[in-house]
Amino acid sequence: MSTADIGLIGLAVMGSNLALNIAEKGYTIAVHNRTASKIDDFVVTAKQQGLDGKVIPKADLADFILTIKRPRSIIIMVKAGKPVDEMIEQLLPHLEQGDAIIECGNSLFTDTQRRFDYLKPKGIGYLGVGVSGGEEGARHGPSIMVGGSKEQWHNAEPVLTAIAAKFNGESCCAYLGEGGAGHFVKTIHNGIEYGDMQMIAEVYGVMRDGLGMNPSQCADVFKEWNKGPLNSYLVEITGHVLAAVDGETGKPLVELILDKAGQKGTGVWSAIAAQQMGVPATAIEGAVAARSISSRKEERVAAEAIYGKPNRAKTDVTLADLEKALLAGKIVSYAQGFAVIAKASEENGWALPLATIAKIWRAGCIIRSRFLDQMASAYAKGGNVNLLVVPDFVTLMKDSHPSLRKVVAAAAQGEFPMICLSAALSYFDSYRQAQGTANLTQGQRDFFGAHGFEIVGRGADLHGTWPSTLGK
Amino acid sequence: MSTADIGLIGLAVMGSNLALNIAEKGYTIAVHNRTASKIDDFVVTAKQQGLDGKVIPKADLADFILTIKRPRSIIIMVKAGKPVDEMIEQLLPHLEQGDAIIECGNSLFTDTQRRFDYLKPKGIGYLGVGVSGGEEGARHGPSIMVGGSKEQWHNAEPVLTAIAAKFNGESCCAYLGEGGAGHFVKTIHNGIEYGDMQMIAEVYGVMRDGLGMNPSQCADVFKEWNKGPLNSYLVEITGHVLAAVDGETGKPLVELILDKAGQKGTGVWSAIAAQQMGVPATAIEGAVAARSISSRKEERVAAEAIYGKPNRAKTDVTLADLEKALLAGKIVSYAQGFAVIAKASEENGWALPLATIAKIWRAGCIIRSRFLDQMASAYAKGGNVNLLVVPDFVTLMKDSHPSLRKVVAAAAQGEFPMICLSAALSYFDSYRQAQGTANLTQGQRDFFGAHGFEIVGRGADLHGTWPSTLGK
Repeated sequence: MSTADIGLIGLAVMGSNLALNIAEKGYTIAVHNRTASKIDDFVVTAKQQGLDGKVIPKADLADFILTIKRPRSIIIMVKAGKPVDEMIEQLLPHLEQGDAIIECGNSLFTDTQRRFDYLKPKGIGYLGVGVSGGEEGARHGPSIMVGGSKEQWHNAEPVLTAIAAKFNGESCCAYLGEGGAGHFVKTIHNGIEYGDMQMIAEVYGVMRDGLGMNPSQCADVFKEWNKGPLNSYLVEITGHVLAAVDGETGKPLVELILDKAGQKGTGVWSAIAAQQMGVPATAIEGAVAARSISSRKEERVAAEAIYGKPNRAKTDVTLADLEKALLAGKIVSYAQGFAVIAKASEENGWALPLATIAKIWRAGCIIRSRFLDQMASAYAKGGNVNLLVVPDFVTLMKDSHPSLRKVVAAAAQGEFPMICLSAALSYFDSYRQAQGTANLTQGQRDFFGAHGFEIVGRGADLHGTWPSTLGK
Repeated sequence: MSTADIGLIGLAVMGSNLALNIAEKGYTIAVHNRTASKIDDFVVTAKQQGLDGKVIPKADLADFILTIKRPRSIIIMVKAGKPVDEMIEQLLPHLEQGDAIIECGNSLFTDTQRRFDYLKPKGIGYLGVGVSGGEEGARHGPSIMVGGSKEQWHNAEPVLTAIAAKFNGESCCAYLGEGGAGHFVKTIHNGIEYGDMQMIAEVYGVMRDGLGMNPSQCADVFKEWNKGPLNSYLVEITGHVLAAVDGETGKPLVELILDKAGQKGTGVWSAIAAQQMGVPATAIEGAVAARSISSRKEERVAAEAIYGKPNRAKTDVTLADLEKALLAGKIVSYAQGFAVIAKASEENGWALPLATIAKIWRAGCIIRSRFLDQMASAYAKGGNVNLLVVPDFVTLMKDSHPSLRKVVAAAAQGEFPMICLSAALSYFDSYRQAQGTANLTQGQRDFFGAHGFEIVGRGADLHGTWPSTLGK
């Protein structure tokens, strides 16, 4: 009777594709959905793909669970938030010691940690799993970031490893740490994705408004860049997006799309997590800000009416500068993102393996790139240090930061917004200087708040004798 | 027996100074402290200042409370966090309907909201009050941001209004809204203060490393700027800090102070609040990041050893450019801060009066300035709009943004870090453009995640027909 290797609940787009992927890899999968008609639809799809032999559809939840081999692995793929908690409560009466719930949505990692802590004393395993790659990734090989109950991970490991993307034959699936570790890493993945996308958008802006290039010309450049150090999924699809032609008008599609970007929350979660831990993540913050400002189209139109059109004189930056600027910006953004991960690892006792994270991001996920392969190798040589001081990346950064400077300077003068690339440059310039200007800040803080300052060799909580500012 | 107009618990620096301020304004104040010796010390100080006649010291808590006229107003000035909750529990058994606790520390506004909600059904008023101005402000006139129980506010109003700073005869104390409103506004005040300080530090860096000026020369410039549009407490004390000479060595003190800035958390709270509400606050985020990077001195020293000393060739920016850049940066930073306040007001139903907030910040607090007087007038003319489109500030911004550009561009080329000023510029350039680049972002999001995009006139949830990226 219990013949399914694994179960899956939630047959919306991502869930269906994951289930088909599992069936295709030869595993028998029981599927369930609250709305029964979705189960029927799924069976039709599975049949069309010749996979229905591996699928056991079950409209009754109790029946669904009994169909799965013990100890059970049950993937749930429902909307993040309350629906996950409700699903857990529905499942609980039917589960037995050693069974595991494998939640594969975009959950907030603190929610995952809470659910993990809730189920642990009940003897039920809980895996919070980040899955990246969109629909196509889910179907043919996503990047899979696993966190939670280590024991139950081993039950699900063969299936999850099999369905993940492969990079040079290595599966892009790994167990990263207890509790919310998987969803935390997925969140930062998304934050980094925000940064990558925004930096691409900024460079596109210079091509469009500074170099006077049309979308087709821009597309060609991104296609070319995809053959070099920027080789990545996002650069590749940027080429496709810019090349797309609207069927109705024959115009470049990108020029018809309204410039209001949406967001689903993981960028904000990344920024908040970084702030809470005191790790600068200004590239992610900049990317989140850029989306937010973009969404205020009406305010922007009103502001332009007041300030006039930006005065975008032709710029002297070259395409080669833009390519290198993008690379330099990307190095800084990843340096920040990995610093956030390293700190979270320390604070939560996760022992997150930076090299492994870079490895499982090399294929399947949205930020997959050649760059991540270099990162994986660099981090594998040891040390959870800032990427900016990892030797291979020092070489890249030394070669590329002059172009980032040139581009940021030209943008400042040419009235091009460059939230993310300028944030990257100023982080680099702050980070690579032994002597900064916080001595003045400390003097000010002591002046108005007696917060104290340090003088090397003399002590750490010294105070100045400041004149009164009253009576003026 | 009940002869005190008000009571105060917590005689550390800020509490003592507030108590002396209250006594000096002619109110009788009962004082209490857990460690009784602090009460004795305080009485000595009060006597030295001829104010002991207005002070009723009480070592016993019950006795202290009975000394205060009903309905009672009891200021508590203890360490933020758990000590506040403990103090509330200690007070509760002694309080009567209509009494009020007035918490004047730097509390997280959500804690204040929680305490307000907890005490309301008990008939005890709770006021969460932000007090800015440091020690000297507390003693001689701080800026006072009041939130919480409106009814009890009226009992304390005469005292709080009397002790606050005055600007042109108007008290810098106001009731802003229910629950956590006062502490929220104080938090954003501090976030803005972070931005002001960081932008000053960035400009100082260019003077020091780009223009080759010594601290005394820099001090003279800030003193001069304090007579113009940048007139403010922070610019004034920057002059003093830069002019200060170390008694031991005779060297400029600022050059001896270690460049590692501390932070107490309100900057981070501001950034998180802004992120949670989806309002860009990149200048505050930049300032928080700058402090965090400054504190990683060892990492910075190591990075400089790898990348070499920054190549800070003499720059062609002038002091006039720096002055205007600072003004432009400040306008953007305040625009962001006030946008955060406006959004919080909307989300919490606080009806925060932007003009009033600008007014009570004109004196007493750390960010007090001529600029805030202009803001108060500008906002008094109506409209909770972004400061960047308020007519008087449009004029200032039009005049000053070219200098901000010049400075940011020179900094980018000259390897000067400019986290905050460049964040300000890129926010402005994003905000004032009717047409941005988020059309590309939306195309990408639809490509990999089917998130949909809008074409004006055609609909809001359209999708492209994208080529597959598989099998390459």
